[in-house]
Amino acid sequence: MSNTNATGARSESVRLMNQSVVLRAVHLAGEQSRSALVPATDLTRGAVGTIVGDLVGLGLLEEERAMSDGSPGRPSTLVRPSGRAVVIAFDLRVETIAVGVFTLGGRRLAGTRISRDHDRGPEHTVDELAVIARGLLELLPADTVVHGVGAAIAGLVRHDDQLVVSGPNLGWRDVPLGDLLRDRLGPDIHVAVGNDADLGALAESRRGAAVGLDDLVYISGEVGIGGGMIVGGRPLIGSAGCSGEVGHIPVNPIGIDCNCGSIGCWETEAGDHALFRRVGRPDVVGSAAIEAIVRDAIAGDRKVLAAIDEQARWIAFGLAGIINVFDPDMVVLGGSLARLHPHIAATLDRELDRRVFDVIRSRVRVVPSALGIDSMLIGAAEWAWDRVLTEPAHAANGVAVPKIVRRIA
Amino acid sequence: MSNTNATGARSESVRLMNQSVVLRAVHLAGEQSRSALVPATDLTRGAVGTIVGDLVGLGLLEEERAMSDGSPGRPSTLVRPSGRAVVIAFDLRVETIAVGVFTLGGRRLAGTRISRDHDRGPEHTVDELAVIARGLLELLPADTVVHGVGAAIAGLVRHDDQLVVSGPNLGWRDVPLGDLLRDRLGPDIHVAVGNDADLGALAESRRGAAVGLDDLVYISGEVGIGGGMIVGGRPLIGSAGCSGEVGHIPVNPIGIDCNCGSIGCWETEAGDHALFRRVGRPDVVGSAAIEAIVRDAIAGDRKVLAAIDEQARWIAFGLAGIINVFDPDMVVLGGSLARLHPHIAATLDRELDRRVFDVIRSRVRVVPSALGIDSMLIGAAEWAWDRVLTEPAHAANGVAVPKIVRRIA
Repeated sequence: MSNTNATGARSESVRLMNQSVVLRAVHLAGEQSRSALVPATDLTRGAVGTIVGDLVGLGLLEEERAMSDGSPGRPSTLVRPSGRAVVIAFDLRVETIAVGVFTLGGRRLAGTRISRDHDRGPEHTVDELAVIARGLLELLPADTVVHGVGAAIAGLVRHDDQLVVSGPNLGWRDVPLGDLLRDRLGPDIHVAVGNDADLGALAESRRGAAVGLDDLVYISGEVGIGGGMIVGGRPLIGSAGCSGEVGHIPVNPIGIDCNCGSIGCWETEAGDHALFRRVGRPDVVGSAAIEAIVRDAIAGDRKVLAAIDEQARWIAFGLAGIINVFDPDMVVLGGSLARLHPHIAATLDRELDRRVFDVIRSRVRVVPSALGIDSMLIGAAEWAWDRVLTEPAHAANGVAVPKIVRRIA
Repeated sequence: MSNTNATGARSESVRLMNQSVVLRAVHLAGEQSRSALVPATDLTRGAVGTIVGDLVGLGLLEEERAMSDGSPGRPSTLVRPSGRAVVIAFDLRVETIAVGVFTLGGRRLAGTRISRDHDRGPEHTVDELAVIARGLLELLPADTVVHGVGAAIAGLVRHDDQLVVSGPNLGWRDVPLGDLLRDRLGPDIHVAVGNDADLGALAESRRGAAVGLDDLVYISGEVGIGGGMIVGGRPLIGSAGCSGEVGHIPVNPIGIDCNCGSIGCWETEAGDHALFRRVGRPDVVGSAAIEAIVRDAIAGDRKVLAAIDEQARWIAFGLAGIINVFDPDMVVLGGSLARLHPHIAATLDRELDRRVFDVIRSRVRVVPSALGIDSMLIGAAEWAWDRVLTEPAHAANGVAVPKIVRRIA
C-alpha cells in the first residue's frame, strides 16, 4: 500500500534485512531457543543460525547451549540479548527528570528519578542528566557498550534536527536538545529525541498495556495533554515529526485562552488545571494536588465528585473525536488520566457510547497505562534502540562506557 | 519501527518482492525505459530484466524496443502497463453513481457517471452498476482481463468482510456490498470495498494534488464530511477499517443533533446542511444548491457572504484539531469544500494561523482536490489494483472480460 518509492532487495541486502528481523524478534519476545526463532521469523533453520552468529559477533546477542530436556534430538541453543549492550534513556518532564540504562529486550540495569529544578534552563537540566547517567554507568562492567541515548520530552520535537521547537509547559522554545546531549555525552554517540507521548505510545505497545496491538492511541494528561499514536503497527510521526498534539484540538468555541495562543483547546478543558479550577483550587499544581483530589473523591466530597464528573465529560468530548478518527484497538491513558481513571470510567464509558460509532466503539478498550510513570522513560530506551534494530551493523558505532564516563567527568 | 511480527526474506521470496517493487514503479510513474527502472528500484540491470520478463509473462506489462536516439550504446527497451489488464471502479455516493475501467498506470479506458435513484435499495444500485459496467466492458477487446473491482462508498466499511456497517446519508445499514458485487459480477472476481474519503486520499496521493507526499489528510464535504489519511506513505486503516470519521469529531458542546446519534459533531456545523441553514435555505440539497450559493457570493450577497464566513470558521475549528494531530504535508479539500475553497480560503488561513502550532502550520498546505469529482472513483481503481501490486502473481486469478459480460447479461 505504500506510496513511497519502495526499493527492491538485492541479494546482498537480504542478509542485512534478516539481521534486523531476528534482532527485533529477540528484542520484543526476549530469550528463546534458536528453534523458536524459525517460525517467529519465517527463516530457515540454517539462516537463523547464520544471522544469530552475525548478531553475537556484533555484541548484541548471546548464545547458550541449553541442557537437554530428556526429549530426543539435539538440545536447542538459547538466544538472548547481551547484557553488555545498552542504551541510556532520559525522561524530561515538568515535575521530574529520570535516567535509566536498558539492555536489548527492555531489561533495566539501573535507573533513578529526581525532582526537576524549575528555575534552571535546558543546559542545567542536561548537565544534571549527564551527571546522573555517569553515576549509573560507573556501576556497569567496563566492557559495556552504549548504542544510543534516547530522550523523551514534554514538547514538540522537530524530526530533522531534534530541535525542541516548543515545550510550553517546560518554558522551553527552540532548544537544540539533541545537540546539547551530544555536546555533553560525546559527539560519537547516537542521540534520539522524541515527544514524550509519542514515546509513551511506543512503550505501551512494546512493553505495556497494548503489546501486540497494531492500532493504539496513548493519551497522557499532566499540565498539558499529549498524544501518541501507533497506526498499522508503526508510530505516527507527521511531516515535521510533530503529530499527536491532541491537547490542542479545539473543543470549546467559547473556551478560555490556551498557552499555545489558541482558544478552547482540549487541554484547557480536560487538563489538570481545568480540574483544579473546577474543584475551586486554581492555585495548586502537580501530582500531589491530583492525589489530594482523588482522596477527597474517595471520601465522598460532593463538590469534588461533581468536578470530576464534569472533567470526565470534557475528557470524553475530545476523546470521542480521536477515537472516531483513529478507530484504535485500544486507548491507553497515562499520567493524571491514569490516576483519575477509576473515578471517571463510568462517565467516560457513557459519553463514548453516545459519541462514537458503534462499530468502532465495540472494538476499542480504554485502559490506564500498564507502565505508569515509567512509560516515557521506557519509550525513550526503545527509541534509542531503533537505529540498531533497523540496521544491526550500526552496533559497530557503539561507544564504550569508560569513554563516556571520562567525557562527563 | 514496526511492532508487528516482521518476517525474514527467504531468497525464494525475494523475487516475488521485487516483482511488486517493479510493478509499483511502473504503475506510479508510467511508461519508462528499462534503464530508468534500475535507479528507481535499486535493483541491478539483470534483475530488472528478469522481473520485467516475469511481469510481461503475467500479462501486466508490455515491452517495446525503443528507437535509438543516436547516442552511443544499445537502445533501451521501453516498459509500460499492458492495455489488456484492467480493473473496474465504482463510486457510490448520495447524488450520483459512477463506473470506470482503468489500466495499470491509471489510464481510464472508459467511464460514466449518472444520477442515483434515491428510492431504491442497495440491490438495485448494484444492478445498475453491473449493467453500466457490462456496457463499458463490451467495448473492450475480448482478451482483456479484469484483475479486480474497487468500490468507493460514503459509509463505514468493515475491513474484515467489506460490510457497509453504516452509510447514514445513503440510508444504508449493514449492507454486504462486497458479497452483492461478487454475486452480480462473478464469484471469482477480487472485490475491494473502501470508504470514499479513504479512497479519495489514496487517489490524491497517487494521481492528484499530493503525489509524492507521505503525510496527507483528505477531507471531503458533501451532506456529511469524510476524511482519509495517508500517514508515513500508507493509508490509515484503523482496527475495524473505519478510521477517518472526522465528520464526527465533537466540536460544539451546545450543538445540534447529528445523524450519528451524537450532538455537536463537526459535520453538523461544517457540512453542507449547516451552510444551507446559515444562508436561510434549510430545505435545499445537493451540489446545485452549493453552486447557487457560490453564485450569490460572487454577486456580493451580504447574507450569503456572512454565512460562508461563519461556515469557514467552523471548518477551520475542526480542521485545526486534525492538523495538530496529524502534522500533515498537505490537506486536500474535496467535494463541496473544494467548490467553496476560493471563498473560504482567507478566513481558513487566518483561523489556522491562530489555532495550529507554528512548526506544523508553516509546513502544511491546504489545497482543493486536483481530481475533483473523480477522486473517489480513481481511488477505487487504485484500491482494486492493490492485490496485484502487492503480489503480482495474483494476475493469474484475473477474469476474462467475456466471462463477466456473460454473467451480468
